[in-house]
Amino acid sequence: MRAVPEAPMLQGLFSGFAAQLGLSLREYQQSQTVIAITVAPHHLNQAGNLHGGVIASIADTAMGMSGTWHSDPAQWRLALTLSLNINYMASTPPDTEVRAVARTRGGGAKIFMASCDLLDADDRLLASAEGVFKRGRLRNDRR
Amino acid sequence: MRAVPEAPMLQGLFSGFAAQLGLSLREYQQSQTVIAITVAPHHLNQAGNLHGGVIASIADTAMGMSGTWHSDPAQWRLALTLSLNINYMASTPPDTEVRAVARTRGGGAKIFMASCDLLDADDRLLASAEGVFKRGRLRNDRR
Amino acid sequence: MRAVPEAPMLQGLFSGFAAQLGLSLREYQQSQTVIAITVAPHHLNQAGNLHGGVIASIADTAMGMSGTWHSDPAQWRLALTLSLNINYMASTPPDTEVRAVARTRGGGAKIFMASCDLLDADDRLLASAEGVFKRGRLRNDRR
Amino acid sequence: MRAVPEAPMLQGLFSGFAAQLGLSLREYQQSQTVIAITVAPHHLNQAGNLHGGVIASIADTAMGMSGTWHSDPAQWRLALTLSLNINYMASTPPDTEVRAVARTRGGGAKIFMASCDLLDADDRLLASAEGVFKRGRLRNDRR
Repeated sequence: MRAVPEAPMLQGLFSGFAAQLGLSLREYQQSQTVIAITVAPHHLNQAGNLHGGVIASIADTAMGMSGTWHSDPAQWRLALTLSLNINYMASTPPDTEVRAVARTRGGGAKIFMASCDLLDADDRLLASAEGVFKRGRLRNDRR
Repeated sequence: MRAVPEAPMLQGLFSGFAAQLGLSLREYQQSQTVIAITVAPHHLNQAGNLHGGVIASIADTAMGMSGTWHSDPAQWRLALTLSLNINYMASTPPDTEVRAVARTRGGGAKIFMASCDLLDADDRLLASAEGVFKRGRLRNDRR
Repeated sequence: MRAVPEAPMLQGLFSGFAAQLGLSLREYQQSQTVIAITVAPHHLNQAGNLHGGVIASIADTAMGMSGTWHSDPAQWRLALTLSLNINYMASTPPDTEVRAVARTRGGGAKIFMASCDLLDADDRLLASAEGVFKRGRLRNDRR
Repeated sequence: MRAVPEAPMLQGLFSGFAAQLGLSLREYQQSQTVIAITVAPHHLNQAGNLHGGVIASIADTAMGMSGTWHSDPAQWRLALTLSLNINYMASTPPDTEVRAVARTRGGGAKIFMASCDLLDADDRLLASAEGVFKRGRLRNDRR
């Protein structure tokens, strides 16, 4: 079963770059965050496959969200990426549905580490990522 | 002085994702590759700054191009990213002009390593990146 | 149950730096490679905890071995590291028994990607690592 | 010209693992930190070249020191590594003198980012590294 928070809470979770990419939140829980994307023409590199930068963007977003999750959505925070590492295992053709499955692995009150697997619909591993992030201001604190 | 190859050779260098991002090639030489982007609303994260995934995308593109440069444009190849690492030093607000300055650092016939600095117009370091890439097929080999 | 190859096959697996570190092979199978070390005074940093370089060394060794495993020990190969990334979650005090649990995640005939978790005796995550490696010559090919 | 602090200030800079490795401080300034090592039998991997873990250890140490330098040695701090990435360009045979040249690239009061080139006596690039670190307690605060 997949748990997605109520719609109003999710409004604005993906704006700007994440919205243009077409990210879709599939799961947002303490244990893991899952973000999906279907590979479209505007995601491709010159070889006709998914651009590595899109993989990096989904992984960055999913890991950042995973470490700023809270049981109370009013306590959701923004994440600042300090370091991001991605290893690419396989080329990803158009129309693939890619899922980024991110988990928080450790850290303290301000800094956290997360990892992320990028999978296709057959659970083939396309890429793996890990990163170090900083918890920033509350999402609701509009300045 | 900045050297940019003749326009016909550059056609199609940025398609798909790179075109949508709005990447602009400023320099493409053996010594270094420079790609620029001006931070627009569709590049932003939830904090209102440049999304880390955009930084990763520019760095990935610039480093991949740097290691597949050739004095004869007919010999330009596509690059496959094996590993990408980015460290983020500073938040980048809207309207910033970001330059990715990439250089090939080593490797052999098939595999190469590159590094990249991401700078603003005042040469402030926004992020640094390094990656491992594989030289793929010739760009002109349309399959 | 832990499977360790017969003693004669293991002779010389850890020489030079790995031998000086005091690495101990706990498991060497297709599914995973486990290397252990007990933190001694010569492993410490200035803060009195396990030096990050030791963590990197164990992770590098375990991941390299994981991707060059073969059911026939005569086919074991050496691994060349192309890229190594480590995230550090927790300080590790003296006398801790550290286990590096490495798995191959993907790749092709020559290049492979692996990941590794560094755990203490209570399965607390001390660090995570991922890397890109190249399969080299057979271990038995003494030049 | 190379500036090395007075001998009494350097006492204890390399203890434990760094001392066993045989690290030698060549330069310690605001602009850069240089640490050298001559490749000995106890630094080798199974292929008879410098173990990747030694490269990681020198880079980690040099980058950590670079970001905790202070004009007043009483203000030198210990560094905690959060993330470390190394790309390996070339095999390093025995007897090579390896220099790690580290520079701080950015960050704030607590967190800093550094990069490091690993070079041989002919300035051939053996490896490059970058990392994220946290400034810890003063070196002189013996607990």
